[in-house]
Amino acid sequence: MAKQIAIIGASGYTGAELIRLIATHPGMEIAALAANSKAGQSMAQVYPHLRHLGLPDLVTVDQIDFGQIDLAFCALPHKTSQEVIRDLPKTLKIVDLSADFRLRDADEYEKWYGNPHSAIKMQAEAVYGLTEFYRDDITAARLVAGTGCNAATGQFTIRPLIEAGVIDLDEIILDMKCAVSGAGRSLKENLLHAELSEGYNAYAVGGTHRHLGEFDQEFSKLAGRPVQVQFTPHLLPVNRGILCTSYVKGGAQAIQKAYEMAYADEPFISVLPFGETPSTHHVRGSNFVHIGVAGDRIPGRAIVVTALDNLCKGSSGQAIQNANLMLGLPETEGLMGVPLFP
Amino acid sequence: MAKQIAIIGASGYTGAELIRLIATHPGMEIAALAANSKAGQSMAQVYPHLRHLGLPDLVTVDQIDFGQIDLAFCALPHKTSQEVIRDLPKTLKIVDLSADFRLRDADEYEKWYGNPHSAIKMQAEAVYGLTEFYRDDITAARLVAGTGCNAATGQFTIRPLIEAGVIDLDEIILDMKCAVSGAGRSLKENLLHAELSEGYNAYAVGGTHRHLGEFDQEFSKLAGRPVQVQFTPHLLPVNRGILCTSYVKGGAQAIQKAYEMAYADEPFISVLPFGETPSTHHVRGSNFVHIGVAGDRIPGRAIVVTALDNLCKGSSGQAIQNANLMLGLPETEGLMGVPLFP
Amino acid sequence: MAKQIAIIGASGYTGAELIRLIATHPGMEIAALAANSKAGQSMAQVYPHLRHLGLPDLVTVDQIDFGQIDLAFCALPHKTSQEVIRDLPKTLKIVDLSADFRLRDADEYEKWYGNPHSAIKMQAEAVYGLTEFYRDDITAARLVAGTGCNAATGQFTIRPLIEAGVIDLDEIILDMKCAVSGAGRSLKENLLHAELSEGYNAYAVGGTHRHLGEFDQEFSKLAGRPVQVQFTPHLLPVNRGILCTSYVKGGAQAIQKAYEMAYADEPFISVLPFGETPSTHHVRGSNFVHIGVAGDRIPGRAIVVTALDNLCKGSSGQAIQNANLMLGLPETEGLMGVPLFP
Amino acid sequence: MAKQIAIIGASGYTGAELIRLIATHPGMEIAALAANSKAGQSMAQVYPHLRHLGLPDLVTVDQIDFGQIDLAFCALPHKTSQEVIRDLPKTLKIVDLSADFRLRDADEYEKWYGNPHSAIKMQAEAVYGLTEFYRDDITAARLVAGTGCNAATGQFTIRPLIEAGVIDLDEIILDMKCAVSGAGRSLKENLLHAELSEGYNAYAVGGTHRHLGEFDQEFSKLAGRPVQVQFTPHLLPVNRGILCTSYVKGGAQAIQKAYEMAYADEPFISVLPFGETPSTHHVRGSNFVHIGVAGDRIPGRAIVVTALDNLCKGSSGQAIQNANLMLGLPETEGLMGVPLFP
Repeated sequence: MAKQIAIIGASGYTGAELIRLIATHPGMEIAALAANSKAGQSMAQVYPHLRHLGLPDLVTVDQIDFGQIDLAFCALPHKTSQEVIRDLPKTLKIVDLSADFRLRDADEYEKWYGNPHSAIKMQAEAVYGLTEFYRDDITAARLVAGTGCNAATGQFTIRPLIEAGVIDLDEIILDMKCAVSGAGRSLKENLLHAELSEGYNAYAVGGTHRHLGEFDQEFSKLAGRPVQVQFTPHLLPVNRGILCTSYVKGGAQAIQKAYEMAYADEPFISVLPFGETPSTHHVRGSNFVHIGVAGDRIPGRAIVVTALDNLCKGSSGQAIQNANLMLGLPETEGLMGVPLFP
Repeated sequence: MAKQIAIIGASGYTGAELIRLIATHPGMEIAALAANSKAGQSMAQVYPHLRHLGLPDLVTVDQIDFGQIDLAFCALPHKTSQEVIRDLPKTLKIVDLSADFRLRDADEYEKWYGNPHSAIKMQAEAVYGLTEFYRDDITAARLVAGTGCNAATGQFTIRPLIEAGVIDLDEIILDMKCAVSGAGRSLKENLLHAELSEGYNAYAVGGTHRHLGEFDQEFSKLAGRPVQVQFTPHLLPVNRGILCTSYVKGGAQAIQKAYEMAYADEPFISVLPFGETPSTHHVRGSNFVHIGVAGDRIPGRAIVVTALDNLCKGSSGQAIQNANLMLGLPETEGLMGVPLFP
Repeated sequence: MAKQIAIIGASGYTGAELIRLIATHPGMEIAALAANSKAGQSMAQVYPHLRHLGLPDLVTVDQIDFGQIDLAFCALPHKTSQEVIRDLPKTLKIVDLSADFRLRDADEYEKWYGNPHSAIKMQAEAVYGLTEFYRDDITAARLVAGTGCNAATGQFTIRPLIEAGVIDLDEIILDMKCAVSGAGRSLKENLLHAELSEGYNAYAVGGTHRHLGEFDQEFSKLAGRPVQVQFTPHLLPVNRGILCTSYVKGGAQAIQKAYEMAYADEPFISVLPFGETPSTHHVRGSNFVHIGVAGDRIPGRAIVVTALDNLCKGSSGQAIQNANLMLGLPETEGLMGVPLFP
Repeated sequence: MAKQIAIIGASGYTGAELIRLIATHPGMEIAALAANSKAGQSMAQVYPHLRHLGLPDLVTVDQIDFGQIDLAFCALPHKTSQEVIRDLPKTLKIVDLSADFRLRDADEYEKWYGNPHSAIKMQAEAVYGLTEFYRDDITAARLVAGTGCNAATGQFTIRPLIEAGVIDLDEIILDMKCAVSGAGRSLKENLLHAELSEGYNAYAVGGTHRHLGEFDQEFSKLAGRPVQVQFTPHLLPVNRGILCTSYVKGGAQAIQKAYEMAYADEPFISVLPFGETPSTHHVRGSNFVHIGVAGDRIPGRAIVVTALDNLCKGSSGQAIQNANLMLGLPETEGLMGVPLFP
């Protein structure tokens, strides 16, 4: 029998993406959808593209009978997420898509997110949800913290290079370009079509973006010493996709080899032939990652370009992949949908 | 065992869309991909978003062993299509996506397409591929002619109204807006991003678009008397989607009822609540159709808005749906993917 | 000396467009900019693209010394506009860009806008601002009411045909497609990039859009009997531009001739060669209008396609054109900027 | 009397942009337009947005009477440009927009462009057209070589920092994002709307883009020693605009000061308040440049973001600015048009 799934925070983009993926997932079934501010509405009202699915109407979190639920996805904003998860049954399996359980260190959390953590004990229990690198921990976890979408992209790029010891750890630059859906379904002036379409800009320049907290934690842990990267996010006038252009110091061929070894058996990660680089177009709407390496004309320097879909592999697809592991389902189940092009 | 499928003309957008859909279709398997001009190339070169699928390389049509093939999709340009299909084994099941076998009347074909038909005898054998209205014929057919994408959209709108006798047959206007992928992967100045993005225009104004041939044939046959519609296509600065705004004379409630009856059991067609109208966003990347009706303030007039994805339901999705019938597979198999939004 | 100009409501898109046009207008100078909600801010903060202009900071309306002002543009939302204009000096020349003084009949105003008019006496004084058809009245006016952008587009299309008596007045359909900037800089979910880009939809279907009030008033007055049109607005995923596809019954050649006569001396309106139709791309960022006519294959029916820039000719450009007349400046001054393409 | 202008290569995007700017330039008048492949056509056919200007029809180059011409803009592809310019009268003032006269060293030219230079003697005469840095030379020049659009953007960013000696010359990274119009009106698959819109990718990764020839020449000359930068171009899914995110090593405040000093009197270049960074939206359709600086959290590193319009300041606007100097006209004449937003 299919696993019974609840989605808390079903009215945002990551919630809708979860529903999209689960709708054709043979091992999961949506049992409850919560969105406190829109409780009582049908999903056809909130997301007409889900009209044909016969989904349950939206309810409030406390209307869900969690006794019938095998796993809950929590797709709420950070801070709200910790407050809701804190009060859920302690035996319920949870994949959280917010930032609330990503950082091990409470001070780091407060530094990047501006508020003290209200469920600090649960952080100890949470497993960081970058599937390809925490597979065993995730399989055994009760609470998994999904990564930031930029953070996932940067880590797919840099982790194998740290592990292989092929780059200078003090000279890492991640020039990141993220689609507007990364900012969620929020009413902000800079997210309006008229403000965004036909334009392009950087933001959070100079090392202020919150996903740096994840980079610092993960890269330093992996390297066994403090690692700080430079990271500049940009807002792309497209709806889905992240492209990360990384500048590193190291041999390009050694870097290529490090990726080929690290990702040889990964079903979702393609390392392109040396010298080719990817487009966000080629992973849109899918759980796939494309990574390409080129050597610079300046010896000892390389450029790595990484593309994934921020809503899918960068968020909801990753969440399903982790849930598959936690529920004993095949890891790729429900996630082999082909990118949509054009 | 999965049915063995060949795709002839695999390097165009409808070819790529067929591959996308078949890749997750449990009852079909791609056995051969032909594209004469790109024979020898891998699909990863031609369409990097298909890189992970382990597809066969492109070959020429005559390199395919059709003895091993259960069904061939032919996604070639019109005129080329009839020449290729003419020479295929006479027992091979074929779904043609071109315009070549849509028109029953050879003179009509020549009038709209400008060249005499070179496989005129096969036209008699071909079944018109508008699944919802030719289901039994398609199930029994050897050769099915996929409809034009605009033609499908207009027919989903108008056929139930002709059948129900609820509109004036001499006063039908179809104001059609189609995404750029409808024009295929062709190198034309007006299809460049710089010429199309941020702009909008009509074309083939005044009754000159070829899909009128299909409208004339089908509506007249259905009505039992000549019916001519007005049809203005426009080029939308989006990649997928058709929206048809239809102006008809008749009672809006009777029109709503006609749709609800005609489509009550159709798995892919949603009739919206009266007064609501759809967006192309809500069907993008899927085989679904949304239809909405509103009455005008002028009594006796109604507006119907219909949305579908031109590449999927308007072309390759329809083709798979027909192939499912021809191969004895469940009609909806491989086609329940949820629209991609945002 | 250049005329001293105040702009009330300078923080919206039409306000910004007024500033853009006046900045290179030799006969006008910006003396004051008001925006109550953003008073105290610099224009560089509100609109960084105006950074280099050395503009006055935003103030509240009551901080403006109107004794120094030759003409004020009022670019506020309807209802607010009438309340502000009511209290301005009675000798001040004003071009209002809102809907508040467009409708002669107070009941019609209340019917379409939902609130009673609070400055009903001023309506009598106001002149309807469709320059090409009210030139003398505007020249002599103190208060000019700018038209709706859709209303302008529809009237450029239909007025010459009513005047020439070449179409059936009971069979007029305006299928209108308007860019997102027509909705202003407002925080609405459906105006977000992720909701709008790559999609397309109709809205206010069935004769409920407010600009119908203008069509009814103007067409009926011109025809000397009630005229009601069908009008369906659509939201285009572009930032600027309106395209109106009109379906009329009449001789296409007579229609072409009617336009050529009506617009022979108009500096901003181009009638295309018969059979050609325009794109919004070709008028973007300009005060120009392109109109093209084609006959349908059904005798006695014609299609007219009209394109203009909703923010410029449809709103702020029209306002400048009217202000030129009111201030005794050459009508085209400051408005001959060439469309931006691509 | 207005200077008489010829444009050779008037059918490309930079040709159209020259016409757009000259149309409202009080000191210039278009006397002749050449485009060999489209000779005989009207500009209304080639560019309908120029329809109202009453321009001369397109002719071949040899049909132009250069005795009547004060200055010619040459907007041809490289290689063709040198062959045409070689045969023009030796006294004619010329602004070339191609790459043909940018590189002083013939070997460098051949290395980056793949063909030997056929007018090698004229290269000695040519002045590099980066107005703000070669103003006096340009004023006295007969032949000015317009810069590459990426090359201009990178130089506006890096030159003041080299001059001020505030950065490490061996650690310069230019992550450049350019609009599709930078590739011209050319029929290439990757420039189609369906291939580009909604996607994003890098190209010429690893130090292979031709504009590196300009960077090498100019930065090395300025520094008095070889300087090589890293430069990765990306293709933005927008029609106009370049954004360059530069990573440099040096003090952020010193960098800010270097810009403020270098550009204090420049009419077209705005240095933003420290910590703010620009958007391409804010310079679109204009000759303005916005530059913003932020310090990284890693001490001694800074990020500079620079935005300009590739077709205007990056190409045709720069060309007009240079022509103004060469013709004794005010440098800013015809170039003060305000950016188009939204």
